[in-house]
Order: sequence, then structure tokens, then C-alpha cells
Amino acid sequence: MRATVMYGAGDVRVETVADAGIVEPTDAVITVTHACICGSDLWPYKSMEQSETGRPMGHEAVGVVEALGADVGTLTVGDVVVMPFAYSDGACVFCHEGLHTSCLHGGFFGNADVGGAQAEAQRVPQADGTLFALPVGKDDALMPSLLTLSDVMGTGHHAAVVAGVRPGQSVAVVGDGAVGLCGVIAAKRLGAEQIIIMGRHADRIALAKEFGATDVVSERGSEAVERVKELTGGFGAHSVLECVGLDQSMETAIGVARPGGSVGRVGVPQGETMPASQTAFYDNVTVSGGPAPARAYIEELLPDILEGKIQPGRVFDRVVRLDEVPEGYRAMDEREAIKVMVEP
Amino acid sequence: MRATVMYGAGDVRVETVADAGIVEPTDAVITVTHACICGSDLWPYKSMEQSETGRPMGHEAVGVVEALGADVGTLTVGDVVVMPFAYSDGACVFCHEGLHTSCLHGGFFGNADVGGAQAEAQRVPQADGTLFALPVGKDDALMPSLLTLSDVMGTGHHAAVVAGVRPGQSVAVVGDGAVGLCGVIAAKRLGAEQIIIMGRHADRIALAKEFGATDVVSERGSEAVERVKELTGGFGAHSVLECVGLDQSMETAIGVARPGGSVGRVGVPQGETMPASQTAFYDNVTVSGGPAPARAYIEELLPDILEGKIQPGRVFDRVVRLDEVPEGYRAMDEREAIKVMVEP
Repeated sequence: MRATVMYGAGDVRVETVADAGIVEPTDAVITVTHACICGSDLWPYKSMEQSETGRPMGHEAVGVVEALGADVGTLTVGDVVVMPFAYSDGACVFCHEGLHTSCLHGGFFGNADVGGAQAEAQRVPQADGTLFALPVGKDDALMPSLLTLSDVMGTGHHAAVVAGVRPGQSVAVVGDGAVGLCGVIAAKRLGAEQIIIMGRHADRIALAKEFGATDVVSERGSEAVERVKELTGGFGAHSVLECVGLDQSMETAIGVARPGGSVGRVGVPQGETMPASQTAFYDNVTVSGGPAPARAYIEELLPDILEGKIQPGRVFDRVVRLDEVPEGYRAMDEREAIKVMVEP
Repeated sequence: MRATVMYGAGDVRVETVADAGIVEPTDAVITVTHACICGSDLWPYKSMEQSETGRPMGHEAVGVVEALGADVGTLTVGDVVVMPFAYSDGACVFCHEGLHTSCLHGGFFGNADVGGAQAEAQRVPQADGTLFALPVGKDDALMPSLLTLSDVMGTGHHAAVVAGVRPGQSVAVVGDGAVGLCGVIAAKRLGAEQIIIMGRHADRIALAKEFGATDVVSERGSEAVERVKELTGGFGAHSVLECVGLDQSMETAIGVARPGGSVGRVGVPQGETMPASQTAFYDNVTVSGGPAPARAYIEELLPDILEGKIQPGRVFDRVVRLDEVPEGYRAMDEREAIKVMVEP
């Protein structure tokens, strides 16, 4: 089959690899109908050391079940399913607590062990716990939005949940990428009254406003902190969604939080240490977050997508075929595209 | 009057200084009947650069109201009061939210601006909001425990609250100083089933057990992390109370937290950055905490002290007169004493 492999910074190739197949009796194999390129894929795209074996890429997908291991009980061949970026058994203590990304038998997609979803097909471990059968056909018009349940909408929602977004309160969203934009949707959905989007790309800001952002802060660093404080009565935002992962963005996130407020971070942190630790301490700012248990949020978010109340699929502003995936990486890396959908 | 002034690392002196007096109409002056030396006083005791003017020390006190500014309305000369380590007006938005340490008109004791409590008397700004009148006389046998409401018991309680301690769950307490010991009391009081004290001083560990600790971990670093995981079914503790403030202790605190768990930190962080940021992220561990709003917790904790349900005053294992304060610093710094009470 054809699949995307990254061999180093800027070196993404679409190649013929061994077909995805059942390895464990709890596996499924899906034909990927929709995948995408994630902001987190851009980190290795910028910095990966050259590798001879390469790394299979992609961890977000909608697909059709093609084969099932002997122990899979809840799925049927032909089901249209969404695949969250982490696999999980749905049965362990952490899955029961809603933290599927810490599943005792779980793991992540997009590596040599399980392969990646920017491909014609994907092996899915723990299929019963991982895959969510959708009530629509694979060509449904809502597919872009349904695809975001695999990661980006669940991740924006996670940021809002762990940042404690509450009705009537103020929210600042650091980062205007696809996750930040979904964070705006999530904050609006949870009842935030004031939603400040922090970013400087005109197309993304325009979409953020359509999603519910009430204010825009385009400054950076200490100027951005001052501007958010001005917009929030001098105090900062109750909840801050950190959707980037750099030291500078985390420092800004802590700086714009109100004393006693919370930062929900979902941008994969690029540094070993967290900046502004003392600022967070003296202001009693809570820092929470991590990989979103996207699987846990599908039940809650799906009805709003089906009813058209939220349209996270609008973050996709470019669609490529599988062979065009390298061009998709380039376009996202150069900020020509917000988020790229892949239709293998 | 006589007061304690620190001039540099290891250089604590008791000197005659200008009498404490009313400066603002919202001030009170109290005669200090009981004060103490705080673990946080040991940070400058270890590292303060030599200063010609020095820094007045002490931020925890019980005293008797001696004078009142014209605008103080709720107190009477002669009231026996507890003075939290931060002053606050009790009226601003943050005080109403219970975060008195972020009061818009507040500040901290133990500096040149307001003086320090390791002294014969103390000027107290925002007296109406700051001071809490006690229902007992100044010589009451419960005074050591009541004195802990000024900081150390409120701080241990804050760690437990922000770490989300809940009935039936597991708690690890990093640090066996007075705050850690009060953290054990707080965790027990909030219903924790398993309370692991992490420390290696026999006298403190013995007291921790009397306060409710169920397990002791004396290892450090990665061995300590392994040991706590063994004690908690392999997962780590639901709530971790970080009561030290060093990078190593914070790294341990994050390491012993269960995925999805919380670290409540009250040890004043000595580093600009927080270690183990990626570990916290990948495990979705929440880091919360900061200076405890001790004033906010007095109403809740006082009845338990008056009824003898908790005895945080047992952390005091040495009493000194004001002139002996330098010896008190030495004893605490060399771990001869857990916490030193000062009776000026």
C-alpha cells in the first residue's frame, strides 16, 4: 500500500510499504478515507534528524473497517469509523476515568510500531476500545467536521475543559492554528462570555471570529500580556488555552492568566522545563493539560456536529490526495494552509 | 522596640528599631505574643546577599490589638488576633473569591515596608480584612495550634485543596517539614485513605504518623518515585503535596503523581522554571498552588482546632524568647528543630 514516511526535517515521502494487516486478535484494519496533517507533525518536519528507516506519519483518520481480529466484538466490516490519535482498550482504570491517553494497553499512532494514518490503510490496535462507529456514510458532507473528532476538536475541547472554562467567564486562546481555532469553538460551546484569540494570521483570525472570538490580540510577549489585561478589567483571563507548545507561548499563557486562573495546555511542549514557574506560583495559576483523551469526548461532541451547532471542519482549508501529502506539509509549515485534509 | 533583622546569609540580629505605629487609617498595631520562624525564612538565611539596611523578618503571629487607625471598624483594642502572613482588605474581587494573597490592596509581612513579626510589635495594614479575632485568651493552651492558622496549617491545607484531595484517595506529601506535616493533617482531615509521607527525619516521620500518614518513603529521586508507585498499585498518588520548593522535590512530586492526578505546590519555588514539564504534560498531571490564602481558611480550620480534632501546634518543638531568635534560625536550618515558636 501507499503511505507517508518522514525521513528527516523537510523530507516527507509517499512510498509503497507493506500492507496494513491484523497482528493481534484485538486489531482492526481500516481503509483510510480521510486523514490529515497535524500541527504536531510540523515539529519533526522542522527538526527531525535524518533517518534511514523513517517514521510513518499520521494519527488522525476516518475510515471504513476492512478487517477485524478474532477478538473484536463491537465492530462490523464496512463500519465507517473515526480513529482517535491514541488507541485505548476502553476497559482499564484510566479509560474508565476518561483519560484514554493513559490507557494501560494503549499507545499512539504515527510510528513504526503501528504505522501511520496518512496512508491507504491503518492497523488499529484495541479496535473495540479505540474506534467509534459513525452514524453516517463515508461521503457525508459533515465528514471534515467528523474527522476533527480524531484529534483537533477533541484537543481544543480538552484545553477548555482542563482550563475550567465556565459560563460567563473570560478565555484567552494562545495560538491561532487549527487547535486554537477549535479551542475557540470549545470555549464558546462551554459558555465563555469573552473569548480573546491571540494570533496574527488574518485568515485564521477571521475564522476565529466566526467561531465566537470576541477580541483579537496580535501583539506578542509582554505587550500581548498588557493588552489581554486591558481587555479583562486589568486582571487577565479566567481560563487560558495554550495551543502552541513553545516556551514563549507558555510564558504568554501564564502571563495572561488572572490570579487564581487556569492554563489548559495542549500544545506539545518543546522544552524540558516550564517557563514562568514563579509567576504561576505567586498568582496561584493552575497549569493543566496534556494529550487529549479524544476518544472520551466523541460522545459529547458528536451530536453538536451532527446538528450543525459546531463546524470544526472549517479549519480544513486545503484538501490533497495521498501523493500530494509532501506539498501539504510544506503548505502548513509555511502557513499557507491552516490545516490540510488528506483523501487517500 | 526589639525586632529581628536579617543582614545576610546566616546573619540574623535582634535589634532596637523604631516602634511599630499607625501609618494609614486602616492600620492596626498589635503586640506580638506569639510568632514563629518559617521554612521560607531559611531561604534568605542560606542565600541572602549581605545588606547594610537589612530585612525585618517574620510573617506569622498571634497578638493583642494595641492601637487602631481611624478607619478600622471591626476590631477593638485588647482583641486577641491571628495575623495571616499576607495582609488583605477582605473586600476586593480576589478576597471575595477566596484568594486573599492576590488582594488588590494587599501585600506580605516581613519586609522594610511593613516590618516583621519576629518582634515585640507589628504594624498591620488593612486590619479589618487581615486580622481574625480569636475567641480565646492570649495564654490559652491551644495557642501553638492557633498560631499555625497564620501560615503553616493554612499552607498545608492549601496544598491539599489545590491538589484535589478527596475521600478515599491516595496522597503523597513531598517534604517532612512543618508545612508537609500540616499537609498530612489536611489530607487526613479531607478524607484521604492513603497518605504517604516522603522524608527521612525520624522525629518528623514519627509526628507524620501520629497526624495520619499511613506510609513512609525515605528514598529520593527515581527510587522514591518507584517506591510510591509500588505503594499505589503501580500508578502513583491521586494528589501530591509539594512542600519544599526545590527543583528536585518538584520533579519528584510530578513523578509520583498518577496520570490525571494533581500536584499542589506550596513550597516557594527556588527555580525560574519548573522541571519535568513534559512528564507532567504526557501524564496530564495538573500543577496548582502558590501562596496560601491563609486568611480564607481560618473560618474552616478554627473549629477543628478549638475542638481538638487537629493539633497542628505540635509542629513546634522549640520555643525561644525574642533575643534567642538567631539561635532558633540555626536550629531550624540544621534540622535540630522542626519549627520554632517565638514568644517575645
